[in-house]
Amino acid sequence: MKMRKIPPIDQDAAQAARLRQLTLTKPPGSLGRLEELSIQLAGITGNPRPKFEHKTVIIMAGDHGVCAEGVSAYPSEVTQQMVYNFLHGGAAINALARQAGAKVVIVDMGVVENFPPIESLIQRKIAAGTRNFARMPAMTAEQAEAAVSIGIEIVEQEIEAGADLIATGEMGIGNTTAAAAMTAAFTGLPARDVTGRGTGIDEAGWQRKVQVIEAALELHSPDPKNGLEVLSKVGGFEIAGLVGVITGAAARRVPVVLDGFISGAAALVAYRLRPGIQPFLIASHQSVEVGHAAILQALGLQPLLTLDLRLGEGSGAVLAFHLIEAASRLLDDMTTFEEAGVSNKE
Amino acid sequence: MKMRKIPPIDQDAAQAARLRQLTLTKPPGSLGRLEELSIQLAGITGNPRPKFEHKTVIIMAGDHGVCAEGVSAYPSEVTQQMVYNFLHGGAAINALARQAGAKVVIVDMGVVENFPPIESLIQRKIAAGTRNFARMPAMTAEQAEAAVSIGIEIVEQEIEAGADLIATGEMGIGNTTAAAAMTAAFTGLPARDVTGRGTGIDEAGWQRKVQVIEAALELHSPDPKNGLEVLSKVGGFEIAGLVGVITGAAARRVPVVLDGFISGAAALVAYRLRPGIQPFLIASHQSVEVGHAAILQALGLQPLLTLDLRLGEGSGAVLAFHLIEAASRLLDDMTTFEEAGVSNKE
Repeated sequence: MKMRKIPPIDQDAAQAARLRQLTLTKPPGSLGRLEELSIQLAGITGNPRPKFEHKTVIIMAGDHGVCAEGVSAYPSEVTQQMVYNFLHGGAAINALARQAGAKVVIVDMGVVENFPPIESLIQRKIAAGTRNFARMPAMTAEQAEAAVSIGIEIVEQEIEAGADLIATGEMGIGNTTAAAAMTAAFTGLPARDVTGRGTGIDEAGWQRKVQVIEAALELHSPDPKNGLEVLSKVGGFEIAGLVGVITGAAARRVPVVLDGFISGAAALVAYRLRPGIQPFLIASHQSVEVGHAAILQALGLQPLLTLDLRLGEGSGAVLAFHLIEAASRLLDDMTTFEEAGVSNKE
Repeated sequence: MKMRKIPPIDQDAAQAARLRQLTLTKPPGSLGRLEELSIQLAGITGNPRPKFEHKTVIIMAGDHGVCAEGVSAYPSEVTQQMVYNFLHGGAAINALARQAGAKVVIVDMGVVENFPPIESLIQRKIAAGTRNFARMPAMTAEQAEAAVSIGIEIVEQEIEAGADLIATGEMGIGNTTAAAAMTAAFTGLPARDVTGRGTGIDEAGWQRKVQVIEAALELHSPDPKNGLEVLSKVGGFEIAGLVGVITGAAARRVPVVLDGFISGAAALVAYRLRPGIQPFLIASHQSVEVGHAAILQALGLQPLLTLDLRLGEGSGAVLAFHLIEAASRLLDDMTTFEEAGVSNKE
């Protein structure tokens, strides 16, 4: 697997941004988290006044064999239908990306149904859905590594084409079950504490989902220190692809804006593989999915938004593009006390 | 005083938006607060699919006689200097308004220093700063009423010129002291529980600020049921102007996006005068200023953002324009399950 090395944060650029914030016409610290974010962005990019002009959301899609256990409110066929919806521009992520002026990149990492050749769809299907991890590992180690490598390849292509800010998105009926299993495996928390309602299952469905996850963790007993093992045993192809997107972007000093629960599970794998990736990650929002809080805590990240979202697709991440751009614009566009002739603090 | 009547929320438009949300290609409720917001926006505007194309922030500036008591970290002259900074486009609000594509309207409601004629500055100075409310009422009842009327007039002009979304902004060294006094008066909470550090006073300054507020409330004992009395005794000209902006916008069914603590104090007055205004208000963020939480609770509003901001100027409100536009675009732009041929919930 072609894992990339994560560079250190550029402390000089971060410090330059920190000092500039103190000279801008506002009480020091009064822009709160936007100031901190601007300093982080400088440190990631190595640019003391970073600008983001080519925002991109990469949506990876895949199906989940575990859906055979009745863990989702929607049938697996919805994964492909929603990919078509993305391609036609009708989904939430399309509306938000249009608003943000962001490019949408859609990747078939492992949807059950096949697609005809479509120019705007990147087809890198590993297999027609994962296997049912209630009975066997979701994928082989080779499949997991291949999916991560594809994610790296795709994000590198986008960065070479100009992308300077990357959001992670996904679509995959059943993937909150995989993400919950991964979160339980990594954090050691009981399955019921990190399992949510996904697209909206009822109480009986939720009980079943928890039992399926508990039984799968018992069956596979993945080593929580081994990111790839957790990924291959109870993960998904789209989640594996996002591991590659996240590490590939950070390796190139491009900030990675994480969406919700599924993206978070991918980030946990990336963090296990490359702990130095943490300062390159930006948590866009905190999802209603109960396990997401545990993921953010494990990653040491504080979300920018808390809007009770639980959609996925990259929707929260693309919403947060605005705040990231605001942070960078404030750092760059505002005048200093000296330039403006404003009296500084007495 | 020409107070305007607040119409009821348009329940038909709100219900149409609520029903449309259920048909869009996403699990119902998965866009969380953005769904609720879209329904609120429909109810305010009377349009089941509202669009916002002419966003405007109205920044009112005024000085505060109470600064003579040493309650601020910056000298009063900064109020005028910052107005010039707004006019020259160098402040945080300018950077954020450029990003949002929003118009910035700047009004001198009562800055101490005079301005020469400037085309882009609306000059409606009531007086050269309020009086020191540690010793006498900040303004007369007539001045308060005149300031509210000016706010109504200005927002109505903007709405007639096309504004369809209004944010409240302000500048006034000393105005967190006025806002804290107003918050204590309206809520009955002790001054120390609603008084913050403003632009950044030290501990001794904060103690002094609390004492000044306590003594002023003792001296004037404003009737908490009388919005205009609280406003005139311990308020400010820019706060009074914003009362007019808020009520004037709501009367025309234009959503009002409140910024932080000072805007919140103005909203408390508007709410006292016209309780029916509550559903027309949108709380953009929760400020670090400790009294803001009490204001939001008194108004029954939940903030969209919590980013540890404490700048004012309308900065948080203009940041939140993006979320309001996102909510309306999602409602309008997304396809329905039927249009997209996506299977709905099983």
